[in-house]
Amino acid sequence: MPDAGSQKTGTCSGAEVLENAEAFLRQGERLDDLQRSDLRIIQDPSKFCFGMDAVLLSGFVTVKQGERVTDLCTGGGIIPLLLSAKTKASQITGIEIQKDMADMAERSVRLNGLEERVRIICGDLRVRGAAGEDGSQDVVTCNPPYMAAGNGIPNPEDALALARHELTCTLEDAVRETARLLRNGGRTAWVYRPNRLAELFAVMRACRLEPKRLKFVHPFADREANMVLVEAAKGGGSFLKVEAPVVVFRAPGEYSPEIREVYGY
Amino acid sequence: MPDAGSQKTGTCSGAEVLENAEAFLRQGERLDDLQRSDLRIIQDPSKFCFGMDAVLLSGFVTVKQGERVTDLCTGGGIIPLLLSAKTKASQITGIEIQKDMADMAERSVRLNGLEERVRIICGDLRVRGAAGEDGSQDVVTCNPPYMAAGNGIPNPEDALALARHELTCTLEDAVRETARLLRNGGRTAWVYRPNRLAELFAVMRACRLEPKRLKFVHPFADREANMVLVEAAKGGGSFLKVEAPVVVFRAPGEYSPEIREVYGY
Repeated sequence: MPDAGSQKTGTCSGAEVLENAEAFLRQGERLDDLQRSDLRIIQDPSKFCFGMDAVLLSGFVTVKQGERVTDLCTGGGIIPLLLSAKTKASQITGIEIQKDMADMAERSVRLNGLEERVRIICGDLRVRGAAGEDGSQDVVTCNPPYMAAGNGIPNPEDALALARHELTCTLEDAVRETARLLRNGGRTAWVYRPNRLAELFAVMRACRLEPKRLKFVHPFADREANMVLVEAAKGGGSFLKVEAPVVVFRAPGEYSPEIREVYGY
Repeated sequence: MPDAGSQKTGTCSGAEVLENAEAFLRQGERLDDLQRSDLRIIQDPSKFCFGMDAVLLSGFVTVKQGERVTDLCTGGGIIPLLLSAKTKASQITGIEIQKDMADMAERSVRLNGLEERVRIICGDLRVRGAAGEDGSQDVVTCNPPYMAAGNGIPNPEDALALARHELTCTLEDAVRETARLLRNGGRTAWVYRPNRLAELFAVMRACRLEPKRLKFVHPFADREANMVLVEAAKGGGSFLKVEAPVVVFRAPGEYSPEIREVYGY
Protein backbone atom coordinates (compact mmCIF):
# COMPACT_ATOMS: atom_id res chain seq x y z
CA MET A 1 0.00 0.00 0.00
CA PRO A 2 1.55 3.32 -0.96
CA ASP A 3 2.11 6.08 1.57
CA ALA A 4 -0.76 8.52 1.81
CA GLY A 5 1.58 11.50 1.87
CA SER A 6 0.51 14.63 3.68
CA GLN A 7 -3.16 15.47 3.90
CA LYS A 8 -4.18 19.07 3.65
CA THR A 9 -7.56 20.64 3.19
CA GLY A 10 -8.08 24.15 1.85
CA THR A 11 -10.20 25.58 4.63
CA CYS A 12 -8.47 28.92 5.07
CA SER A 13 -11.11 31.64 5.36
CA GLY A 14 -10.81 35.39 5.15
CA ALA A 15 -11.59 38.29 2.91
CA GLU A 16 -8.79 37.66 0.46
CA VAL A 17 -9.75 39.23 -2.81
CA LEU A 18 -8.37 39.60 -6.27
CA GLU A 19 -6.93 43.02 -5.46
CA ASN A 20 -4.39 41.30 -3.26
CA ALA A 21 -3.65 38.68 -5.88
CA GLU A 22 0.09 39.32 -5.92
CA ALA A 23 0.27 38.32 -2.26
CA PHE A 24 -0.74 34.78 -3.24
CA LEU A 25 2.14 34.27 -5.62
CA ARG A 26 5.48 32.61 -4.92
CA GLN A 27 8.65 33.04 -6.87
CA GLY A 28 8.41 31.93 -10.48
CA GLU A 29 4.61 31.84 -10.42
CA ARG A 30 2.27 33.89 -12.52
CA LEU A 31 -1.42 34.71 -12.48
CA ASP A 32 -3.50 33.67 -15.52
CA ASP A 33 -6.95 35.01 -16.33
CA LEU A 34 -9.37 32.16 -17.10
CA GLN A 35 -11.58 34.50 -19.16
CA ARG A 36 -14.60 33.31 -17.24
CA SER A 37 -16.39 34.81 -14.21
CA ASP A 38 -13.24 36.81 -13.38
CA LEU A 39 -11.50 33.58 -12.37
CA ARG A 40 -7.74 33.53 -12.12
CA ILE A 41 -5.33 30.67 -11.62
CA ILE A 42 -1.82 30.55 -10.26
CA GLN A 43 0.60 28.68 -12.50
CA ASP A 44 4.32 28.03 -12.58
CA PRO A 45 5.55 27.69 -16.16
CA SER A 46 8.50 25.58 -14.97
CA LYS A 47 6.01 23.02 -13.68
CA PHE A 48 2.83 21.82 -15.35
CA CYS A 49 0.41 24.36 -16.87
CA PHE A 50 -3.10 23.32 -17.82
CA GLY A 51 -3.95 22.60 -21.44
CA MET A 52 -6.96 22.59 -23.71
CA ASP A 53 -7.79 19.05 -22.51
CA ALA A 54 -8.83 20.36 -19.08
CA VAL A 55 -10.94 23.12 -20.61
CA LEU A 56 -12.69 20.68 -22.94
CA LEU A 57 -13.34 18.27 -20.09
CA SER A 58 -14.93 21.01 -17.98
CA GLY A 59 -17.28 21.75 -20.89
CA PHE A 60 -18.08 18.10 -21.58
CA VAL A 61 -18.99 16.84 -18.11
CA THR A 62 -22.62 17.12 -17.04
CA VAL A 63 -23.09 18.34 -13.45
CA LYS A 64 -26.55 19.04 -12.05
CA GLN A 65 -27.51 21.54 -9.40
CA GLY A 66 -26.43 20.55 -5.91
CA GLU A 67 -24.24 17.64 -6.99
CA ARG A 68 -20.95 16.75 -5.34
CA VAL A 69 -17.99 16.54 -7.67
CA THR A 70 -14.46 15.24 -7.16
CA ASP A 71 -11.61 15.89 -9.58
CA LEU A 72 -8.78 13.35 -9.45
CA CYS A 73 -5.21 14.35 -10.41
CA THR A 74 -6.33 17.97 -10.16
CA GLY A 75 -2.87 19.52 -10.60
CA GLY A 76 -3.17 23.28 -10.18
CA GLY A 77 -6.95 22.97 -9.75
CA ILE A 78 -8.02 24.08 -13.21
CA ILE A 79 -11.03 21.75 -13.40
CA PRO A 80 -12.46 22.59 -9.95
CA LEU A 81 -12.04 26.30 -10.73
CA LEU A 82 -13.78 26.05 -14.11
CA LEU A 83 -16.56 23.83 -12.71
CA SER A 84 -17.22 26.36 -9.96
CA ALA A 85 -18.17 28.83 -12.69
CA LYS A 86 -19.75 26.49 -15.24
CA THR A 87 -21.92 24.37 -12.92
CA LYS A 88 -24.13 24.60 -9.84
CA ALA A 89 -22.29 21.83 -8.02
CA SER A 90 -22.68 22.21 -4.25
CA GLN A 91 -19.20 20.91 -3.43
CA ILE A 92 -16.15 20.46 -5.62
CA THR A 93 -13.10 18.59 -4.34
CA GLY A 94 -9.76 18.31 -6.08
CA ILE A 95 -7.13 15.78 -5.05
CA GLU A 96 -3.48 16.07 -6.03
CA ILE A 97 -0.47 14.06 -4.87
CA GLN A 98 2.22 16.69 -5.47
CA LYS A 99 2.50 19.05 -2.51
CA ASP A 100 3.60 22.10 -4.45
CA MET A 101 0.87 21.68 -7.06
CA ALA A 102 -1.80 21.13 -4.40
CA ASP A 103 -0.53 24.19 -2.53
CA MET A 104 -0.77 26.27 -5.68
CA ALA A 105 -4.31 24.97 -6.32
CA GLU A 106 -5.36 25.80 -2.78
CA ARG A 107 -4.00 29.35 -3.10
CA SER A 108 -5.93 29.72 -6.38
CA VAL A 109 -9.10 28.66 -4.56
CA ARG A 110 -8.57 31.28 -1.84
CA LEU A 111 -7.53 33.92 -4.34
CA ASN A 112 -10.90 33.51 -6.06
CA GLY A 113 -12.81 33.38 -2.74
CA LEU A 114 -14.14 29.88 -3.48
CA GLU A 115 -13.30 28.20 -0.13
CA GLU A 116 -16.98 27.51 0.56
CA ARG A 117 -17.51 25.35 -2.52
CA VAL A 118 -14.07 24.17 -3.56
CA ARG A 119 -11.55 22.30 -1.45
CA ILE A 120 -8.19 20.87 -2.39
CA ILE A 121 -6.80 17.71 -0.80
CA CYS A 122 -3.12 16.89 -1.04
CA GLY A 123 -3.05 13.13 -0.91
CA ASP A 124 -2.60 9.86 -2.72
CA LEU A 125 -5.79 8.65 -4.35
CA ARG A 126 -4.52 5.07 -4.13
CA VAL A 127 -5.13 5.21 -0.38
CA ARG A 128 -8.72 4.24 0.20
CA GLY A 129 -10.63 7.14 1.67
CA ALA A 130 -7.97 9.74 0.86
CA ALA A 131 -10.19 11.43 -1.73
CA GLY A 132 -13.45 10.93 0.16
CA GLU A 133 -15.87 8.28 1.39
CA ASP A 134 -16.99 5.44 -0.82
CA GLY A 135 -20.20 6.27 -2.69
CA SER A 136 -20.13 9.90 -1.59
CA GLN A 137 -19.81 11.60 -4.98
CA ASP A 138 -22.29 12.25 -7.80
CA VAL A 139 -19.63 13.04 -10.37
CA VAL A 140 -15.90 12.32 -10.67
CA THR A 141 -13.71 14.01 -13.29
CA CYS A 142 -10.21 12.99 -14.28
CA ASN A 143 -7.55 14.32 -16.63
CA PRO A 144 -4.99 11.63 -15.83
CA PRO A 145 -1.38 11.13 -16.90
CA TYR A 146 -1.67 9.83 -20.45
CA MET A 147 1.49 7.82 -20.78
CA ALA A 148 2.12 4.41 -19.26
CA ALA A 149 5.14 4.35 -16.95
CA GLY A 150 8.36 3.19 -18.54
CA ASN A 151 8.03 5.12 -21.77
CA GLY A 152 11.26 7.13 -21.50
CA ILE A 153 10.79 9.09 -18.32
CA PRO A 154 13.34 11.82 -17.67
CA ASN A 155 13.16 12.27 -13.89
CA PRO A 156 10.58 10.96 -11.44
CA GLU A 157 11.01 14.07 -9.26
CA ASP A 158 9.97 16.27 -12.12
CA ALA A 159 6.47 17.79 -11.87
CA LEU A 160 6.06 17.56 -15.64
CA ALA A 161 6.96 13.88 -15.64
CA LEU A 162 4.47 13.20 -12.84
CA ALA A 163 1.70 15.01 -14.69
CA ARG A 164 2.34 13.20 -17.96
CA HIS A 165 3.36 9.68 -16.91
CA GLU A 166 1.74 7.08 -14.69
CA LEU A 167 4.44 7.32 -12.04
CA THR A 168 2.30 7.76 -8.95
CA CYS A 169 -0.99 6.54 -10.34
CA THR A 170 -1.85 4.07 -13.10
CA LEU A 171 -4.98 4.10 -15.19
CA GLU A 172 -6.30 1.22 -13.08
CA ASP A 173 -5.65 3.14 -9.84
CA ALA A 174 -7.58 6.20 -11.00
CA VAL A 175 -10.50 4.21 -12.43
CA ARG A 176 -10.79 2.03 -9.32
CA GLU A 177 -10.86 5.11 -7.06
CA THR A 178 -13.44 6.73 -9.34
CA ALA A 179 -15.70 3.70 -9.00
CA ARG A 180 -15.30 3.74 -5.22
CA LEU A 181 -16.10 7.41 -4.83
CA LEU A 182 -19.20 7.38 -7.04
CA ARG A 183 -22.69 6.57 -5.84
CA ASN A 184 -24.58 4.04 -7.96
CA GLY A 185 -25.77 5.82 -11.09
CA GLY A 186 -23.13 8.51 -10.62
CA ARG A 187 -21.17 9.74 -13.63
CA THR A 188 -17.51 10.11 -14.44
CA ALA A 189 -15.95 12.19 -17.20
CA TRP A 190 -12.41 11.72 -18.50
CA VAL A 191 -10.20 13.26 -21.10
CA TYR A 192 -7.74 10.79 -22.56
CA ARG A 193 -5.65 9.83 -25.56
CA PRO A 194 -7.59 7.99 -28.28
CA ASN A 195 -4.78 5.47 -28.72
CA ARG A 196 -5.53 4.05 -25.26
CA LEU A 197 -9.33 4.11 -25.61
CA ALA A 198 -9.80 0.33 -25.83
CA GLU A 199 -7.75 -0.03 -22.65
CA LEU A 200 -9.73 2.72 -20.89
CA PHE A 201 -13.02 1.03 -21.82
CA ALA A 202 -11.77 -2.32 -20.55
CA VAL A 203 -10.56 -0.91 -17.23
CA MET A 204 -13.76 1.10 -16.73
CA ARG A 205 -16.04 -1.84 -17.47
CA ALA A 206 -14.05 -4.06 -15.11
CA CYS A 207 -15.01 -1.53 -12.40
CA ARG A 208 -18.69 -1.41 -13.48
CA LEU A 209 -18.28 1.99 -15.11
CA GLU A 210 -20.15 1.77 -18.41
CA PRO A 211 -19.14 4.24 -21.16
CA LYS A 212 -22.22 6.28 -22.14
CA ARG A 213 -20.97 9.32 -24.11
CA LEU A 214 -17.90 9.84 -26.29
CA LYS A 215 -16.66 12.95 -28.00
CA PHE A 216 -13.51 13.03 -30.08
CA VAL A 217 -11.33 16.09 -30.53
CA HIS A 218 -9.62 16.51 -33.91
CA PRO A 219 -7.06 19.28 -34.48
CA PHE A 220 -8.45 19.71 -38.01
CA ALA A 221 -11.56 18.21 -39.65
CA ASP A 222 -9.46 15.89 -41.82
CA ARG A 223 -6.99 14.75 -39.15
CA GLU A 224 -6.88 11.95 -36.61
CA ALA A 225 -8.34 12.63 -33.17
CA ASN A 226 -5.75 13.58 -30.54
CA MET A 227 -8.07 13.66 -27.53
CA VAL A 228 -11.20 11.83 -26.49
CA LEU A 229 -13.79 12.80 -23.90
CA VAL A 230 -15.57 9.88 -22.21
CA GLU A 231 -18.51 9.88 -19.82
CA ALA A 232 -19.35 6.65 -18.02
CA ALA A 233 -22.04 5.75 -15.50
CA LYS A 234 -21.58 3.54 -12.45
CA GLY A 235 -23.70 0.43 -12.95
CA GLY A 236 -25.20 1.74 -16.20
CA GLY A 237 -26.48 -0.43 -19.05
CA SER A 238 -24.58 -0.77 -22.30
CA PHE A 239 -25.58 2.08 -24.63
CA LEU A 240 -23.03 4.53 -25.97
CA LYS A 241 -23.60 7.81 -27.79
CA VAL A 242 -20.82 9.21 -29.94
CA GLU A 243 -21.40 12.94 -30.15
CA ALA A 244 -20.43 15.24 -32.99
CA PRO A 245 -16.64 15.72 -32.85
CA VAL A 246 -14.90 18.89 -31.75
CA VAL A 247 -12.69 20.36 -34.45
CA VAL A 248 -10.14 22.71 -32.90
CA PHE A 249 -8.83 24.65 -35.89
CA ARG A 250 -10.76 25.83 -38.93
CA ALA A 251 -7.50 26.83 -40.60
CA PRO A 252 -3.89 26.87 -39.38
CA GLY A 253 -3.76 29.26 -36.41
CA GLU A 254 -7.48 29.98 -36.58
CA TYR A 255 -9.72 28.39 -33.96
CA SER A 256 -13.05 26.96 -35.08
CA PRO A 257 -16.23 28.83 -34.07
CA GLU A 258 -17.10 26.03 -31.60
CA ILE A 259 -13.78 26.34 -29.78
CA ARG A 260 -14.21 30.09 -29.52
CA GLU A 261 -17.87 30.13 -28.57
CA VAL A 262 -18.21 27.03 -26.38
CA TYR A 263 -14.79 26.91 -24.81
CA GLY A 264 -13.87 30.57 -24.81
CA TYR A 265 -10.61 30.40 -26.74
CA MET B 1 -23.95 -26.98 -31.45
CA PRO B 2 -26.17 -25.51 -34.16
CA ASP B 3 -26.83 -27.32 -37.41
CA ALA B 4 -24.46 -26.43 -40.22
CA GLY B 5 -27.28 -26.06 -42.72
CA SER B 6 -26.57 -26.75 -46.36
CA GLN B 7 -23.11 -26.08 -47.75
CA LYS B 8 -22.83 -24.73 -51.23
CA THR B 9 -19.90 -23.24 -53.05
CA GLY B 10 -20.23 -20.95 -56.05
CA THR B 11 -18.04 -22.82 -58.49
CA CYS B 12 -20.28 -22.67 -61.53
CA SER B 13 -18.18 -21.76 -64.55
CA GLY B 14 -19.19 -20.66 -68.02
CA ALA B 15 -19.30 -17.65 -70.26
CA GLU B 16 -22.23 -15.98 -68.59
CA VAL B 17 -22.03 -12.28 -69.28
CA LEU B 18 -23.88 -9.16 -68.41
CA GLU B 19 -25.82 -9.23 -71.68
CA ASN B 20 -27.66 -12.27 -70.32
CA ALA B 21 -28.23 -10.62 -66.96
CA GLU B 22 -32.00 -11.03 -67.02
CA ALA B 23 -31.54 -14.80 -67.12
CA PHE B 24 -30.02 -14.67 -63.63
CA LEU B 25 -33.04 -13.03 -62.06
CA ARG B 26 -35.91 -14.70 -60.23
CA GLN B 27 -39.34 -13.26 -59.62
CA GLY B 28 -39.35 -10.10 -57.56
CA GLU B 29 -35.62 -9.53 -58.00
CA ARG B 30 -33.96 -6.60 -59.69
CA LEU B 31 -30.51 -5.80 -61.00
CA ASP B 32 -28.69 -2.84 -59.44
CA ASP B 33 -25.67 -1.12 -60.97
CA LEU B 34 -22.88 -0.72 -58.37
CA GLN B 35 -21.40 2.22 -60.34
CA ARG B 36 -17.99 0.62 -60.17
CA SER B 37 -16.14 -1.56 -62.70
CA ASP B 38 -19.48 -2.37 -64.40
CA LEU B 39 -20.45 -4.47 -61.40
CA ARG B 40 -24.09 -5.37 -60.89
CA ILE B 41 -25.85 -7.01 -57.97
CA ILE B 42 -29.08 -8.94 -57.76
CA GLN B 43 -31.37 -7.72 -54.99
CA ASP B 44 -34.89 -8.45 -53.82
CA PRO B 45 -36.49 -5.36 -52.31
CA SER B 46 -38.83 -7.54 -50.25
CA LYS B 47 -35.77 -9.02 -48.54
CA PHE B 48 -32.65 -7.20 -47.40
CA CYS B 49 -30.95 -4.68 -49.70
CA PHE B 50 -27.46 -3.45 -48.93
CA GLY B 51 -26.96 -0.07 -47.30
CA MET B 52 -24.32 2.59 -47.08
CA ASP B 53 -22.72 0.68 -44.20
CA ALA B 54 -21.50 -2.05 -46.56
CA VAL B 55 -20.15 0.48 -49.04
CA LEU B 56 -18.30 2.37 -46.30
CA LEU B 57 -16.84 -0.86 -44.92
CA SER B 58 -15.54 -1.86 -48.34
CA GLY B 59 -13.75 1.51 -48.54
CA PHE B 60 -12.40 1.34 -44.98
CA VAL B 61 -10.84 -2.11 -44.91
CA THR B 62 -7.21 -2.43 -46.00
CA VAL B 63 -6.51 -5.43 -48.23
CA LYS B 64 -3.10 -5.98 -49.79
CA GLN B 65 -2.27 -7.67 -53.06
CA GLY B 66 -2.69 -11.43 -52.97
CA GLU B 67 -4.43 -11.55 -49.59
CA ARG B 68 -7.27 -13.93 -48.78
CA VAL B 69 -10.43 -12.28 -47.49
CA THR B 70 -13.57 -13.70 -45.92
CA ASP B 71 -16.77 -11.74 -45.44
CA LEU B 72 -19.05 -13.02 -42.68
CA CYS B 73 -22.83 -12.47 -42.83
CA THR B 74 -22.38 -11.56 -46.50
CA GLY B 75 -26.09 -11.34 -47.35
CA GLY B 76 -26.42 -10.71 -51.07
CA GLY B 77 -22.64 -10.53 -51.43
CA ILE B 78 -22.24 -6.78 -51.67
CA ILE B 79 -18.91 -6.69 -49.82
CA PRO B 80 -17.20 -9.50 -51.82
CA LEU B 81 -18.40 -7.86 -55.03
CA LEU B 82 -17.08 -4.42 -54.07
CA LEU B 83 -13.79 -5.84 -52.76
CA SER B 84 -13.25 -7.68 -56.05
CA ALA B 85 -13.13 -4.26 -57.72
CA LYS B 86 -11.49 -2.19 -54.98
CA THR B 87 -8.68 -4.57 -53.95
CA LYS B 88 -6.18 -7.02 -55.36
CA ALA B 89 -7.23 -9.81 -53.00
CA SER B 90 -6.45 -13.21 -54.49
CA GLN B 91 -9.50 -14.94 -53.04
CA ILE B 92 -12.67 -13.51 -51.54
CA THR B 93 -15.14 -15.74 -49.71
CA GLY B 94 -18.58 -14.74 -48.47
CA ILE B 95 -20.54 -16.84 -46.01
CA GLU B 96 -24.29 -16.47 -45.48
CA ILE B 97 -26.70 -18.62 -43.50
CA GLN B 98 -29.88 -17.82 -45.43
CA LYS B 99 -30.20 -20.05 -48.48
CA ASP B 100 -32.09 -17.60 -50.65
CA MET B 101 -29.67 -14.76 -49.88
CA ALA B 102 -26.63 -16.98 -50.51
CA ASP B 103 -28.19 -18.17 -53.75
CA MET B 104 -28.74 -14.59 -54.86
CA ALA B 105 -25.14 -13.72 -53.94
CA GLU B 106 -23.83 -16.69 -55.91
CA ARG B 107 -25.83 -15.67 -58.96
CA SER B 108 -24.43 -12.14 -58.66
CA VAL B 109 -20.91 -13.60 -58.63
CA ARG B 110 -21.58 -15.57 -61.81
CA LEU B 111 -23.38 -12.69 -63.45
CA ASN B 112 -20.24 -10.60 -63.02
CA GLY B 113 -17.93 -13.43 -64.14
CA LEU B 114 -16.10 -13.44 -60.80
CA GLU B 115 -16.18 -17.17 -60.05
CA GLU B 116 -12.38 -17.38 -60.12
CA ARG B 117 -11.85 -14.93 -57.27
CA VAL B 118 -15.12 -14.86 -55.35
CA ARG B 119 -16.97 -17.78 -53.84
CA ILE B 120 -20.12 -17.85 -51.74
CA ILE B 121 -20.69 -20.42 -49.01
CA CYS B 122 -24.16 -21.04 -47.65
CA GLY B 123 -23.51 -22.19 -44.13
CA ASP B 124 -23.60 -21.40 -40.44
CA LEU B 125 -20.47 -19.62 -39.26
CA ARG B 126 -21.03 -20.99 -35.77
CA VAL B 127 -19.96 -24.40 -37.07
CA ARG B 128 -16.21 -24.57 -36.80
CA GLY B 129 -14.70 -24.89 -40.25
CA ALA B 130 -17.89 -23.91 -42.12
CA ALA B 131 -16.37 -20.62 -43.27
CA GLY B 132 -12.84 -21.96 -43.79
CA GLU B 133 -9.85 -23.40 -41.99
CA ASP B 134 -8.49 -21.87 -38.81
CA GLY B 135 -5.76 -19.32 -39.51
CA SER B 136 -6.36 -19.42 -43.26
CA GLN B 137 -7.41 -15.81 -43.84
CA ASP B 138 -5.46 -12.53 -43.99
CA VAL B 139 -8.54 -10.34 -43.63
CA VAL B 140 -12.08 -10.89 -42.34
CA THR B 141 -14.84 -8.37 -42.89
CA CYS B 142 -18.20 -8.29 -41.14
CA ASN B 143 -21.34 -6.19 -41.36
CA PRO B 144 -23.24 -8.10 -38.70
CA PRO B 145 -26.81 -7.84 -37.42
CA TYR B 146 -26.73 -4.75 -35.20
CA MET B 147 -29.49 -5.52 -32.75
CA ALA B 148 -29.29 -7.95 -29.87
CA ALA B 149 -31.94 -10.68 -30.04
CA GLY B 150 -35.04 -10.00 -28.02
CA ASN B 151 -35.48 -6.36 -28.99
CA GLY B 152 -38.97 -6.59 -30.50
CA ILE B 153 -38.46 -9.03 -33.33
CA PRO B 154 -41.38 -9.39 -35.74
CA ASN B 155 -40.80 -12.81 -37.27
CA PRO B 156 -37.75 -15.04 -37.07
CA GLU B 157 -38.44 -16.40 -40.57
CA ASP B 158 -38.20 -12.94 -42.01
CA ALA B 159 -35.04 -12.18 -44.02
CA LEU B 160 -35.06 -8.58 -42.78
CA ALA B 161 -35.27 -9.71 -39.17
CA LEU B 162 -32.38 -12.13 -39.68
CA ALA B 163 -30.24 -9.44 -41.25
CA ARG B 164 -30.94 -6.91 -38.51
CA HIS B 165 -31.16 -9.01 -35.34
CA GLU B 166 -28.84 -11.52 -33.77
CA LEU B 167 -31.17 -14.44 -34.36
CA THR B 168 -28.78 -16.88 -35.98
CA CYS B 169 -25.51 -15.33 -34.88
CA THR B 170 -24.60 -13.22 -31.87
CA LEU B 171 -21.81 -10.68 -31.74
CA GLU B 172 -19.73 -13.21 -29.80
CA ASP B 173 -20.30 -15.89 -32.47
CA ALA B 174 -19.13 -13.66 -35.30
CA VAL B 175 -16.10 -12.32 -33.41
CA ARG B 176 -15.03 -15.79 -32.29
CA GLU B 177 -15.22 -17.10 -35.86
CA THR B 178 -13.30 -14.07 -37.09
CA ALA B 179 -10.49 -14.79 -34.63
CA ARG B 180 -10.40 -18.44 -35.71
CA LEU B 181 -10.25 -17.70 -39.41
CA LEU B 182 -7.49 -15.07 -39.17
CA ARG B 183 -3.80 -15.80 -39.23
CA ASN B 184 -1.76 -14.13 -36.48
CA GLY B 185 -1.33 -10.47 -37.42
CA GLY B 186 -4.32 -10.69 -39.75
CA ARG B 187 -6.84 -7.86 -39.78
CA THR B 188 -10.59 -7.63 -39.40
CA ALA B 189 -12.84 -4.73 -40.34
CA TRP B 190 -16.37 -4.24 -39.05
CA VAL B 191 -19.13 -1.76 -39.45
CA TYR B 192 -21.28 -1.47 -36.36
CA ARG B 193 -23.54 0.74 -34.32
CA PRO B 194 -21.67 3.20 -32.05
CA ASN B 195 -24.03 2.46 -29.17
CA ARG B 196 -22.58 -1.07 -28.90
CA LEU B 197 -18.94 -0.06 -29.37
CA ALA B 198 -17.83 -0.75 -25.79
CA GLU B 199 -19.36 -4.23 -26.08
CA LEU B 200 -17.68 -4.82 -29.46
CA PHE B 201 -14.29 -3.81 -28.04
CA ALA B 202 -14.73 -6.11 -25.06
CA VAL B 203 -15.73 -9.10 -27.19
CA MET B 204 -12.92 -8.48 -29.66
CA ARG B 205 -10.26 -8.16 -26.99
CA ALA B 206 -11.49 -11.32 -25.29
CA CYS B 207 -10.64 -13.05 -28.61
CA ARG B 208 -7.22 -11.35 -28.91
CA LEU B 209 -8.47 -8.98 -31.61
CA GLU B 210 -7.02 -5.58 -30.70
CA PRO B 211 -8.82 -2.50 -32.10
CA LYS B 212 -6.31 -0.48 -34.17
CA ARG B 213 -8.33 1.95 -36.32
CA LEU B 214 -11.69 3.62 -35.77
CA LYS B 215 -13.69 5.84 -38.07
CA PHE B 216 -17.05 7.27 -37.11
CA VAL B 217 -19.77 8.13 -39.59
CA HIS B 218 -21.97 11.12 -38.79
CA PRO B 219 -25.04 11.93 -40.90
CA PHE B 220 -24.22 15.65 -40.47
CA ALA B 221 -21.14 17.35 -39.01
CA ASP B 222 -23.06 18.43 -35.91
CA ARG B 223 -24.91 15.17 -35.25
CA GLU B 224 -24.18 11.99 -33.31
CA ALA B 225 -22.42 9.18 -35.15
CA ASN B 226 -24.78 6.48 -36.45
CA MET B 227 -22.13 4.06 -37.70
CA VAL B 228 -18.61 3.14 -36.68
CA LEU B 229 -15.92 1.39 -38.71
CA VAL B 230 -13.46 -0.66 -36.67
CA GLU B 231 -10.27 -2.40 -37.76
CA ALA B 232 -8.64 -4.81 -35.33
CA ALA B 233 -5.52 -6.97 -35.57
CA LYS B 234 -5.17 -10.52 -34.29
CA GLY B 235 -2.62 -10.48 -31.49
CA GLY B 236 -1.83 -6.80 -31.99
CA GLY B 237 -0.56 -4.45 -29.27
CA SER B 238 -2.77 -1.78 -27.74
CA PHE B 239 -2.60 1.34 -29.90
CA LEU B 240 -5.71 2.82 -31.50
CA LYS B 241 -5.97 5.51 -34.18
CA VAL B 242 -9.22 7.43 -34.50
CA GLU B 243 -9.34 8.71 -38.05
CA ALA B 244 -11.08 11.83 -39.28
CA PRO B 245 -14.83 11.16 -39.28
CA VAL B 246 -16.96 10.64 -42.38
CA VAL B 247 -19.74 13.19 -42.68
CA VAL B 248 -22.45 11.89 -45.03
CA PHE B 249 -24.46 15.01 -45.82
CA ARG B 250 -23.20 18.53 -46.33
CA ALA B 251 -26.77 19.82 -46.36
CA PRO B 252 -30.12 18.02 -46.25
CA GLY B 253 -30.30 15.81 -49.33
CA GLU B 254 -26.82 16.81 -50.50
CA TYR B 255 -24.01 14.30 -50.05
CA SER B 256 -20.65 15.57 -48.82
CA PRO B 257 -17.77 15.67 -51.33
CA GLU B 258 -16.08 12.74 -49.50
CA ILE B 259 -19.13 10.52 -49.86
CA ARG B 260 -19.37 11.33 -53.55
CA GLU B 261 -15.68 11.07 -54.36
CA VAL B 262 -14.52 8.25 -52.10
CA TYR B 263 -17.63 6.12 -51.95
CA GLY B 264 -19.18 6.94 -55.33
CA TYR B 265 -22.59 8.13 -54.17
